[in-house]
Amino acid sequence: MTRWKPDAAGRLMTAALALFDERGYNETTVAEIAERAGLTKRTFFRYFTDKREVLFSGSAELEHVWTAAVAAAVADADPLTAATAGFDPVAGIFTGRHGYARIRAQIIASNPELRERELIKLQTLAGAIKTALTERGISPNAATLAAQAAVTVFHVAFARWVQQDDPAAFRQLMDVSLRELRSITAARPSPAGETERPGHRGG
Amino acid sequence: MTRWKPDAAGRLMTAALALFDERGYNETTVAEIAERAGLTKRTFFRYFTDKREVLFSGSAELEHVWTAAVAAAVADADPLTAATAGFDPVAGIFTGRHGYARIRAQIIASNPELRERELIKLQTLAGAIKTALTERGISPNAATLAAQAAVTVFHVAFARWVQQDDPAAFRQLMDVSLRELRSITAARPSPAGETERPGHRGG
Repeated sequence: MTRWKPDAAGRLMTAALALFDERGYNETTVAEIAERAGLTKRTFFRYFTDKREVLFSGSAELEHVWTAAVAAAVADADPLTAATAGFDPVAGIFTGRHGYARIRAQIIASNPELRERELIKLQTLAGAIKTALTERGISPNAATLAAQAAVTVFHVAFARWVQQDDPAAFRQLMDVSLRELRSITAARPSPAGETERPGHRGG
Repeated sequence: MTRWKPDAAGRLMTAALALFDERGYNETTVAEIAERAGLTKRTFFRYFTDKREVLFSGSAELEHVWTAAVAAAVADADPLTAATAGFDPVAGIFTGRHGYARIRAQIIASNPELRERELIKLQTLAGAIKTALTERGISPNAATLAAQAAVTVFHVAFARWVQQDDPAAFRQLMDVSLRELRSITAARPSPAGETERPGHRGG
């Protein structure tokens, strides 16, 4: 236990975010982050592979919490209900982190490489949720569609949440966005549009 | 017009795909691609920034065709109908390219960097469709949800298409996947699950 400092990662994250915000992401070095946190570069690299990963270190927890909730959903849950079972515990992760999330979102929005990394992380998350759904016996195609829908709803709700002042509303915004998705996919095209036959043959 | 050789890009793409398939993506150089196509490296770099972009050079056409179809959708089209208006012309792009698409999919699946690039391209496409939807007066949130849904349906249908032998079925597979998405989002959670109120307040 001597090499494991449970507060070091958090101190490094706080220091990194402050420096990214003050000086810009590109202008901040690992040495400066470590110095601000009162730690060494060596300690930094014990927790993070590079400065970029500081911004994405929450991904593993997000994925773990979400997929565990999918696995624990009631046995007869339909694919989307199972996929969105992560919404409650995921909202829990972000409780008290509205300020952090807002600054992080600004930093990521300002940098194309970080925006790409964020998209990759979301797609990795969707892939993990898809796997958790298939392990419930849901077909791969339905699992992909449900996982993508759930992650898109999460993403839209998150973008809304960081743009507004109410830190408590994240969970509600997920429901709002989910209802909006349901509304969009429930709309039937006009006769001039796509031809739709009754009944399904997906699978 | 003297510097523009309309067949050079196609020859380079064919040569690159053959070499990636025969030798592996990492083992193939730009010089080898140019040589196989009977062209110079200099000509290669007139069309592509690197060997990776050969595999993604169709993205611009896909995005252009899709967003043009969204813009041209009937005036009263709902968000998802407008977002999926690209399905017909997009299927047209892939007509006669089943063999190419299958080999390309195998190459991309075998390389993590290429898989990431493919995800980024899909997300860029979704962003362009979202923009085209907002230009129709659709709210940003609804546009994001509809664009993501349409691209996910396309992606699932594409993955099915390259796994099967019938090259003609791509357009049908988009409809199958779209029906499956509608079915998934139409399913209502059981009373033990999410609490759903009637009526919408999205926007």
